[in-house]
Amino acid sequence: MLAAKKIGLLAGSGALPHAVIAGAIDSGYDVFVVALDGFGEVSSFSQPAQLFRIGELGRLLKTLKREKCTHVVMAGQINRPDFKKIKPDLGGMKYLPKALAAAAKGDDALLRFILEVFEKEGFSILAPQEICNSSLMPSGLLGKCEPTDKDKVDIEKALDIAAYIGAEDIGQAAVVCNGLVLAVEAQEGTDKMLERVAALPVSVRGTPDDKLGVLAKCLKPAQEDRIDLPTIGVETIKNAHHAGLSGVALKAGEAFVLDLNAVRKYANSKGLFVIGIEK
Amino acid sequence: MLAAKKIGLLAGSGALPHAVIAGAIDSGYDVFVVALDGFGEVSSFSQPAQLFRIGELGRLLKTLKREKCTHVVMAGQINRPDFKKIKPDLGGMKYLPKALAAAAKGDDALLRFILEVFEKEGFSILAPQEICNSSLMPSGLLGKCEPTDKDKVDIEKALDIAAYIGAEDIGQAAVVCNGLVLAVEAQEGTDKMLERVAALPVSVRGTPDDKLGVLAKCLKPAQEDRIDLPTIGVETIKNAHHAGLSGVALKAGEAFVLDLNAVRKYANSKGLFVIGIEK
Repeated sequence: MLAAKKIGLLAGSGALPHAVIAGAIDSGYDVFVVALDGFGEVSSFSQPAQLFRIGELGRLLKTLKREKCTHVVMAGQINRPDFKKIKPDLGGMKYLPKALAAAAKGDDALLRFILEVFEKEGFSILAPQEICNSSLMPSGLLGKCEPTDKDKVDIEKALDIAAYIGAEDIGQAAVVCNGLVLAVEAQEGTDKMLERVAALPVSVRGTPDDKLGVLAKCLKPAQEDRIDLPTIGVETIKNAHHAGLSGVALKAGEAFVLDLNAVRKYANSKGLFVIGIEK
Repeated sequence: MLAAKKIGLLAGSGALPHAVIAGAIDSGYDVFVVALDGFGEVSSFSQPAQLFRIGELGRLLKTLKREKCTHVVMAGQINRPDFKKIKPDLGGMKYLPKALAAAAKGDDALLRFILEVFEKEGFSILAPQEICNSSLMPSGLLGKCEPTDKDKVDIEKALDIAAYIGAEDIGQAAVVCNGLVLAVEAQEGTDKMLERVAALPVSVRGTPDDKLGVLAKCLKPAQEDRIDLPTIGVETIKNAHHAGLSGVALKAGEAFVLDLNAVRKYANSKGLFVIGIEK
């Protein structure tokens, strides 16, 4: 008989945690959901779940061990906590100074530190994409729309710029239009960045009727790829369309597409390409 | 008798062109103002001025020669034109394809190209700061507020990040707060970037009552320093204050401060530092 496999899922907001739960059950894992206060409701999960405040690391580790979790997965969006307001329990206290130091270096450093804590406490870390690979961005075109030659030049530059800013842990996403960098993402997130592009003068960008420009999202070069994988969904395509872009470029196998069929359908209906570039 | 010196001032919007005019007159130049349609009114200038549409390069060059201009200065903000809508005259037609190619490489490439055209046509290019150096950012503190040790770490990182994104001609400005890059500027401009910082969760930024974080603006490393020098004014300090920042860092001698005394006074009144870092 195989040893029991049980995942402690640290669930942020959005659809990804639910996709991970479905994939985990399919793969024969049991799941215990850690709902984080402010990011998810216990009642929204189909599996046993419990609410934790950020900072209750002591209680969290104890609970995961009592639940006999063998693996830990982080999935979904978790905004940076306000470190001034965290009330750590005894277990949390132990790690807080190092967490603060890591947080000052950037999001990736903070997430990496958190994973190290769980590893040190004996859990194996799984990446969301190891469990629900049906949502990983495939290679090539997702839908029926193709980039023009002009778009291809923008795709290349946008991916370069996204990687360039990622190398300094600034952000994951960039918009390039006709060779010009219209926007790069930092703490505001991709949707807000696209809203900003939509507010730029039409002289530098495309429009839904006369599309031009590309959104690229890519993993930060040094990024811990078990967490915080670049993610797009229908909302991303909607915002990209509103910003007048021609399409979206991701690295194949290195980005999540939430509800892949819905994204494909929506992109087709609006005439945007979604492309997965081979590494 | 000295040869007559006359400046053709290509005037964008904002206060800088007026500061340049005052400085030029003080330095013994005559001035002919080229008001660009959409960016300035002929009537707002104290010196002889004429309105030109972007694209009327032929008429512009002819006029500058007829006016016996020996020098050309560009000053003030000029947004990227909509190249699809430019109606070039015969002289403009000649340069449009090269302008389009330069524009696709970034703002700096475009501006550099424009200066080359004027040089080729026999004009000497002057930098705004060669004529109105009273507005150049001095070294050290502009007002009475000093950065804390924490701020100093953010100053260094913010200047690094601003130079880093500048190296790819993305933008000139960045905001760093407690080590974290909150925002980087691309086409939206500094004021919009600061508005965005003000909209971020207070967990990652300071507040006007509990200031934290630094705005840095610096010349792109490869940038043509005769144009588009980083510029701040009272509005910049106002927005930085609203975004909860501790202060603003510039490179000494490589940035314009519009109405320096007003900036100093306003920064003092709100408790923000404004510092010029030696290269």
